[in-house]
Amino acid sequence: MPDETYQADHPEVTSTAATPTTATPLSIATGAQHDDSTLEQTKVPRRPRTATNTAEIDSTIIHPGSVRINVKGAFIVDTPESGTPNGMSPSPQGSSYYETKDIRLPNHTAVVSHIAVDIGGSLAKLVYFSREAHSTEPGGRLNFLSFETDRIEDCFEFMKHLKDKQLALNGSRSSELSVMATGGGAYKFYDRIRERLGVDVMREDEMECLIIGLDFFITEIPREVFTYSETDPMHFVEPEENIYPYMLVNIGSGVSMLKVSGPRTYERVGGTSLGGGTLWGLLSLLTPAESFDEMLDMAAQGDNAKVDMLVGDIYGMDYGKIGLKGTAIASSFGKVFRMKREAEREAEDSGGLSNGDSDHHHLSSKSGESAVTEAIKSRFSASDVSRSLLYAVSNNIGQIAYLQSQIHGLSHIYFGGSFIRGHPQTMNTLSYAIKFWSKGEKQAYFLRHEGYLGSVGAFLKRQPRNWGRRGSFEEEGLETRMRERVRAESASQETVDEAVL
Amino acid sequence: MPDETYQADHPEVTSTAATPTTATPLSIATGAQHDDSTLEQTKVPRRPRTATNTAEIDSTIIHPGSVRINVKGAFIVDTPESGTPNGMSPSPQGSSYYETKDIRLPNHTAVVSHIAVDIGGSLAKLVYFSREAHSTEPGGRLNFLSFETDRIEDCFEFMKHLKDKQLALNGSRSSELSVMATGGGAYKFYDRIRERLGVDVMREDEMECLIIGLDFFITEIPREVFTYSETDPMHFVEPEENIYPYMLVNIGSGVSMLKVSGPRTYERVGGTSLGGGTLWGLLSLLTPAESFDEMLDMAAQGDNAKVDMLVGDIYGMDYGKIGLKGTAIASSFGKVFRMKREAEREAEDSGGLSNGDSDHHHLSSKSGESAVTEAIKSRFSASDVSRSLLYAVSNNIGQIAYLQSQIHGLSHIYFGGSFIRGHPQTMNTLSYAIKFWSKGEKQAYFLRHEGYLGSVGAFLKRQPRNWGRRGSFEEEGLETRMRERVRAESASQETVDEAVL
Repeated sequence: MPDETYQADHPEVTSTAATPTTATPLSIATGAQHDDSTLEQTKVPRRPRTATNTAEIDSTIIHPGSVRINVKGAFIVDTPESGTPNGMSPSPQGSSYYETKDIRLPNHTAVVSHIAVDIGGSLAKLVYFSREAHSTEPGGRLNFLSFETDRIEDCFEFMKHLKDKQLALNGSRSSELSVMATGGGAYKFYDRIRERLGVDVMREDEMECLIIGLDFFITEIPREVFTYSETDPMHFVEPEENIYPYMLVNIGSGVSMLKVSGPRTYERVGGTSLGGGTLWGLLSLLTPAESFDEMLDMAAQGDNAKVDMLVGDIYGMDYGKIGLKGTAIASSFGKVFRMKREAEREAEDSGGLSNGDSDHHHLSSKSGESAVTEAIKSRFSASDVSRSLLYAVSNNIGQIAYLQSQIHGLSHIYFGGSFIRGHPQTMNTLSYAIKFWSKGEKQAYFLRHEGYLGSVGAFLKRQPRNWGRRGSFEEEGLETRMRERVRAESASQETVDEAVL
Repeated sequence: MPDETYQADHPEVTSTAATPTTATPLSIATGAQHDDSTLEQTKVPRRPRTATNTAEIDSTIIHPGSVRINVKGAFIVDTPESGTPNGMSPSPQGSSYYETKDIRLPNHTAVVSHIAVDIGGSLAKLVYFSREAHSTEPGGRLNFLSFETDRIEDCFEFMKHLKDKQLALNGSRSSELSVMATGGGAYKFYDRIRERLGVDVMREDEMECLIIGLDFFITEIPREVFTYSETDPMHFVEPEENIYPYMLVNIGSGVSMLKVSGPRTYERVGGTSLGGGTLWGLLSLLTPAESFDEMLDMAAQGDNAKVDMLVGDIYGMDYGKIGLKGTAIASSFGKVFRMKREAEREAEDSGGLSNGDSDHHHLSSKSGESAVTEAIKSRFSASDVSRSLLYAVSNNIGQIAYLQSQIHGLSHIYFGGSFIRGHPQTMNTLSYAIKFWSKGEKQAYFLRHEGYLGSVGAFLKRQPRNWGRRGSFEEEGLETRMRERVRAESASQETVDEAVL
C-alpha cells in the first residue's frame, strides 16, 4: 500500500480540504516558546518566536486548530494545582464531579482558546489547558475533570466558568473560547451547549477521538501506560518504535473494541453492552452503595465464592480432564437460586411462606416482595455480591477482548474508559484474563488517564503538524494520515458491526 | 491422518481394552425384536431374535453396555404416557421436577437395565426407558425428567422408585439396575447414589456425554433439531450427510463451548460463567419470581428499554458511522444508576435522605437499605429487569459463541442445556446474535430435548455397535472412534483452557 508510506516533502502545505470531519490541522503557527533543540523545531526554523499578541489570538479563532501544544517535557503531576481556578471544592463523595491528575506542559505557553468534552452515557469528561497563573513556573497544564452525565448542567456550569476566566487561564478573550465535543452527548446536547455557553461547538467522532487520545498518551506522556500484575501493580512501559497494530478496549457504560492499524486508521470490531453501566446499575439495585467508588470499595472486601458457583461446588473436586480447577467460577451468581430454594423450604417449614402475586411487581420490598425474597437477600452481603459482579463483568470483557484480538491478530490490548478507575481488582482480572486466554502471548495495558482518551483526542483535534516527541504526528506523515483517515472512514462505514443487537 | 479413515472389516471384534473410560460398547446381543429391513440387521443376520429371558437379563448385567436400543421409527410423543409409572403427579409449579416430552421407540422391546442421570450445578436430568406396559402398543419410550440439584434427594427417591418397578418397566430384576451418571454430581454424589439405591454407578465424562447425546438427537430423532426465527419459530431440519464439524454451546448454570470434529472427537474450546445460574440468581435477588419459568414469563412481558441505556439515549439519534442504531443496547442496566441519582436528588429535595452505613450490609431492605435504594427499586418493574437480564445473558453467550466459532472455523452452532427451556425470546436472541455477528453465514440450531444431551449421552454409553439410522454408529467405524476418543482425550488434556478464571 504505497499511499501509507508516502512521505510529503513540502512541510508548508496547508491543504485542509481532505479532512471534512476535523478542525483544520494546519494553519498559522502561534508563537509558542519553542525549544529549538527539539527535532521538529530544528527542521522548521522559519517559524518566529513571538509573544502572544492580539493578532495571534485572532488567528487562533479564525483558524481553529492552529494552536500548537508543546508537549516537550510533559509529565503527570501528583499534587493538585494550587489556586485551582475552578472555584469548586475538591471532589467529595457524592458530588457530581471527579478530578484526575493533571499533566504539566512546562514548555507550552501559547494561547489555548478551546476546551474539550467527551459526553458519554454515564460521565462527561472535560479536558482544558491552563497556564500556571498562580505560580512562577513556566508553561501550563492539562486539567482533567469528569461529571455525571445526568448532572450535565454542572458540567456546563463549569465550562461557563472556564469561559469567564479565559483571560486569566489562557490569555484569550471569553468570546474566543470554542468547545470541542465528542461522545453521544456532543450530538444530544449540541444545541444546549451552544445556548448555555454562547460558543462554537465542534463535534468530533467518538471512536476517532479515542484513538487520537490513546496515541497521545502512549507516545507522548511518560509514566502514563503501565502493565498490571499482583506482584508488580504498576509497571510503566515506554512505547516501542512502532506501536501499531493494537486493540483498544474502551469500557464506559458499554464497551467498544477497536482495531487500530496506524495513526487514525481504525475499525470498531465489536463491543459488549455488559460494561460499567451494567455493574453500576445492578449494584445500585442490589447494594446500598451510592457511588462507583463505594461499590469498588465493597468489592475489595467481598468474597465471590459465597455467591458464585465454583467448579468445586458442582464436582466436589477439580474437573481435571478439561483443566478446570475446583476454584474456577462455573456460574456467576450460581449459588443464589439454590439459596432461594433453601429459604423457601425454611419458610414452608415454619409456615410463614407468603407467595405474592408475581405480575407487574415493582422491585421495592415495600410493594410486595415475599418473605422468601427477603430471606434470600439477608443471606448475601453487599460486598460479596459486588465482588462477584465485578469479576463477572471484568472477566467477560477480558474474554471477549481476547477473542477479538485473536481474530484480528493483535497482541497489544489497551484498556481505557472510566470503568477501570485504577481499581486493582478490575485491572488484575482484565490482565489475568488476557494472559490466561492467550497463554501468555498477549498483554493488557492500562493508562493513568484511562477515562480521558476521547476528550484528550477531541482536544488534540485542534493540533497542528509537527509537534510531539514521536514521529506519529510529524508533518511529513500528515497527508498520508489524512488519506488514511478518509479510507478508514469509508471502511468503517462498510463494517456493519454493533456492540449489541 | 490415516487413523481417522481406517475401516475395520472384522465386525465381530470385541476388544474393549482401548476404551478405559467407557462401558463395554460391544458384547452379546440381547434379542431385541429387530426389523430386518434395516441396513444394520441385514448385515448381521446371525444375531437371533429371541424373547427376553433370564439368561439374557443376566448377560445384560454381566456385560454392561450390551443393550441395543432399537431407534427405528423413533419419534417424539406430544402426549404424556398414560399410567405413568413414576407415581408422582405431573409437574406443578414449585415442585422439584419437570418433565420433557418422551421419545417413543416402537421397535425396542429388549430389556434395559440401566438409567442415566446428569447432575449439574442447578439441575439433575434423568433419562430412563420404559416399556409400554399399560398399553397394547409395542416397544417403549425414553422418559425425561429433571430435578433441582439442591433437592437431589427427590431425584434419588425417584430413581429408587424406578428400581423398585424395574420388572414392570423393563422386565429386569430390581437388583439388576445400574446407573450411568455424568456431570459434576456424578462425582460429588457418587457414594450417596450407591448407598441410597444399592446399585452400581458408572461415571462418564460430562463433555463426552454431551456430544454423544447431541449426535444421537441430530442423527436419530426426527423433528428434534430446529432453527428459530420470529417468522418461522420452529423450522425442523434433517441432518446433512456429514454433520461435522460443529460447535456445541451448552448453557446450564454456566456455559461450555465444544468444538466437535467427528464422532466423539471434541475439544472444550471455552465457555463463560455468565449462564443460566447468573440469570436465575440475579433475578432471584431482583424479582419475586420463584421459578425459572416464572422469570421467563415476566421477561416476556417486560420492556428492556426502561432499564437498558440505548444508543439513542446517549446520542439522541443513531450512531450511523459505525452502524449502531438508536435502538441498539449500549449498556445493559445502564439507565439504573442514573435513576438512582435522580431518586437521591428527590430525596435530598424532600429532606428525606437517609444514608445508611455502607459497610457489610446485607441485601435485605429490613436490615438497612436506604430510602434511596427503596426509591430506585420502585422505579423498575420486575418484568423490565427480567427482560433486560435475559437479553444481556443471551446476547453475551451468542456473541462469545460466534467469536469462538469464528476462531475455530465452525458454521453450525447447536445450543443445548437447560437454560433455553424452549423460551422464544431466548432462542430469538441467540439466533439473531449468530446471524448478526456472522452476517448470515452461521446458523444457530436448537433441540427439543436441549437439557438432556448429557444424560442421553450417558444412557447411550451402554450402546452396542451397529444401531441407528445413520452411519455414525456403524460398527465399521468403532475402532476408529475408539482411537479418536483416546486421541481426543489426550488432546483435551493438553488444552489448558477454562470457562473462567
